[in-house]
Amino acid sequence: MSEPLRGVLVVGQSGGPTPVINASLAGVIGEAQKHDCFTGIYGLVHGIEGALKEELLDLGGETAKGLELLARAPASALGSCRRRLSSDDYERIVTVFRAHGVRHFVYIGGNDSMDTCHRISGLAGEGGYEMQVMGVPKTIDNDLAFTDHCPGYGSAARFLALATRDTGRDLEAMATFDDVTILEAMGRNAGWLTAASALGKETKDEAPHLVYVPEVAFDEESFLDKVTSIHGRLGRVFVVVSEGIRDANGQFIGQRRVGGGTDAFGHVVHSLTTGVAAYLTDLVRERLGLQARFLRPGLIGRAMSSCVSETDLREALQVGKEAVAHLVDGRSGYMVTLERVLDNPYTCETGLAPLADVANAEKLLPREFMNEAGDMVTDAFWTYALPLIDGPLPSLGRLEGARVPRMVS
Amino acid sequence: MSEPLRGVLVVGQSGGPTPVINASLAGVIGEAQKHDCFTGIYGLVHGIEGALKEELLDLGGETAKGLELLARAPASALGSCRRRLSSDDYERIVTVFRAHGVRHFVYIGGNDSMDTCHRISGLAGEGGYEMQVMGVPKTIDNDLAFTDHCPGYGSAARFLALATRDTGRDLEAMATFDDVTILEAMGRNAGWLTAASALGKETKDEAPHLVYVPEVAFDEESFLDKVTSIHGRLGRVFVVVSEGIRDANGQFIGQRRVGGGTDAFGHVVHSLTTGVAAYLTDLVRERLGLQARFLRPGLIGRAMSSCVSETDLREALQVGKEAVAHLVDGRSGYMVTLERVLDNPYTCETGLAPLADVANAEKLLPREFMNEAGDMVTDAFWTYALPLIDGPLPSLGRLEGARVPRMVS
Repeated sequence: MSEPLRGVLVVGQSGGPTPVINASLAGVIGEAQKHDCFTGIYGLVHGIEGALKEELLDLGGETAKGLELLARAPASALGSCRRRLSSDDYERIVTVFRAHGVRHFVYIGGNDSMDTCHRISGLAGEGGYEMQVMGVPKTIDNDLAFTDHCPGYGSAARFLALATRDTGRDLEAMATFDDVTILEAMGRNAGWLTAASALGKETKDEAPHLVYVPEVAFDEESFLDKVTSIHGRLGRVFVVVSEGIRDANGQFIGQRRVGGGTDAFGHVVHSLTTGVAAYLTDLVRERLGLQARFLRPGLIGRAMSSCVSETDLREALQVGKEAVAHLVDGRSGYMVTLERVLDNPYTCETGLAPLADVANAEKLLPREFMNEAGDMVTDAFWTYALPLIDGPLPSLGRLEGARVPRMVS
Repeated sequence: MSEPLRGVLVVGQSGGPTPVINASLAGVIGEAQKHDCFTGIYGLVHGIEGALKEELLDLGGETAKGLELLARAPASALGSCRRRLSSDDYERIVTVFRAHGVRHFVYIGGNDSMDTCHRISGLAGEGGYEMQVMGVPKTIDNDLAFTDHCPGYGSAARFLALATRDTGRDLEAMATFDDVTILEAMGRNAGWLTAASALGKETKDEAPHLVYVPEVAFDEESFLDKVTSIHGRLGRVFVVVSEGIRDANGQFIGQRRVGGGTDAFGHVVHSLTTGVAAYLTDLVRERLGLQARFLRPGLIGRAMSSCVSETDLREALQVGKEAVAHLVDGRSGYMVTLERVLDNPYTCETGLAPLADVANAEKLLPREFMNEAGDMVTDAFWTYALPLIDGPLPSLGRLEGARVPRMVS
């Protein structure tokens, strides 16, 4: 612990929004308002682009009531960006920050944003311009390393678990005239979110019946065999697939490249148009002659503010507050982490990880969270993920009535 | 009013589920339990197919607590069907009903189900076997005639309004690196549901910016012009389209026929694989060079039990109860309707319409509920639809902070 710098605190949001990213923002603003070392609290409009364009909002006057509303608002209230910075950009950022007396920088984001955060942290030292920097984790993908889980994941996971459970009941009701539903979940590299689709399942025969993640190689023939077998047994099959599932050679399933083929960070832009679920739906129809349809909630799953996990919301708020508390304690160059103390009753504390470590690490779904066949989650995953979605989900109940004995042959 | 028949009451659910179709079922069971004229309360497993296969559940013993849970469970708890009956089928149904002493038939469903209901009603008279028949309206499509609106619509509409509003905020946050989002809403012929996507909109620039329904001919060139213009002004465009939009010649947009081409009722099965949103997304990319993505929540929108409209839930329960009350009063051959008394404060009563009238009528979105350009809903639609979704939706709030004056040129 040392004395904090005295100056303006700037906060930004980056990358894909989550249902609770504004809770972290509310945490940052609310905590910063309590400390005199912050001579101002500014927000970056559209993340780091707001620094480049010198577009800043004065957030110092946000009311407690306003912050409460903000915490539950979907998307990134400040606007987001997805931009890889050049060295000219970094110079410009320091110029702008210096002009406004910025001495504290808090960035709420995922992998790429923590990299940006880390570079700005390094830059501050090099250029002889003192600044404290802190990262706040955020991603529905749950793929940041050095943290038990990421704020945003629990809420997107809860939506997916609810949607799969309820739509599974729908398919069950329609099983006399419909056969296969394939739901595509977000997740290019990590299967965390897709795995969570199973968390509303109360019995083996409830949806989902098959879950496919990017971490396990996908085999079309094996998939078709399993669909046939489950359909034979139940008359219906509910499948959830990550958008980024790949075959044994690493080729994306159903890939159709569009436009330039890569995004700003060099990630392959795959299946943009129709996606893997549409492809597999066609495959099931053509090869098995079954009725099939696909669902692609896409961004809805990371935006639905009415499906947030209260645990997730609370933690998102907390990591925002903690980031500021650490600045006040004179720290810099870290991302706030979540450290699980106990699964049941679920207990979680915050910690710190150096931005240098977090910046380029990606945490995939451990193999032991999927069964040996690679098509369903394990109990270990349930134990890990259920508290994050405020699970177990409220029970739906079923009709209790017995079959009426036959009177007609 | 006359004396009711004394015998078993059979209830079934038919067609696509809604988030509140089980509330109607709970209403039927709960009300029937109160009256001695019903010597039993049976449920048809998978709708009318349960009669053909003699698969009946004894629902007489459902508890009050069980019915309460049931009312909020998604999908059709009894199972559904989509089957056009042959004359042999009708004979079989009477045989099965007679064997079980069935004297009351309640069918919860949409257009096609009311047709089935009407035929069974006629059959009962013809065959000399006395029976009372009552229809309970249900459809997320809201296209039943002789009723102000249909139970199920309000909840599916609420989901869509929430999803559009929240995902619109997401697109707004990402507007520096994303351009166009196209959401496909269910609705083959009627645009009621699609129109409801606009009900979360607080200002002109919020999502959705364009809304296209089957009732208005769709023109691709005009669509592209509008997307270009809105994108030029806002940097983002959020579009909602009904799955069944058509061009001036009545051709489905982006149609790709699959399999047999028609379903059990002779409806054209169009765009099954990729759908119109995927088609328009490609069009926007190729013709305008904009980033575009599509969302297709599909069945999720009619299954999400966590997004129900309490008004819708209450009315769904009520029409179920009323159907039974009318049987007790000796009536037969009607569908229970909802009759709006007042828009504000919203007040609604129930009424009756002859099944013969309802059976083959379809109520499309009135032209005055869409603006002249046919790309956005009117105030008249708001007045009609807002109470049905428990509107207005809770306000999201926005950051209040002012722009910080520039310090760097």
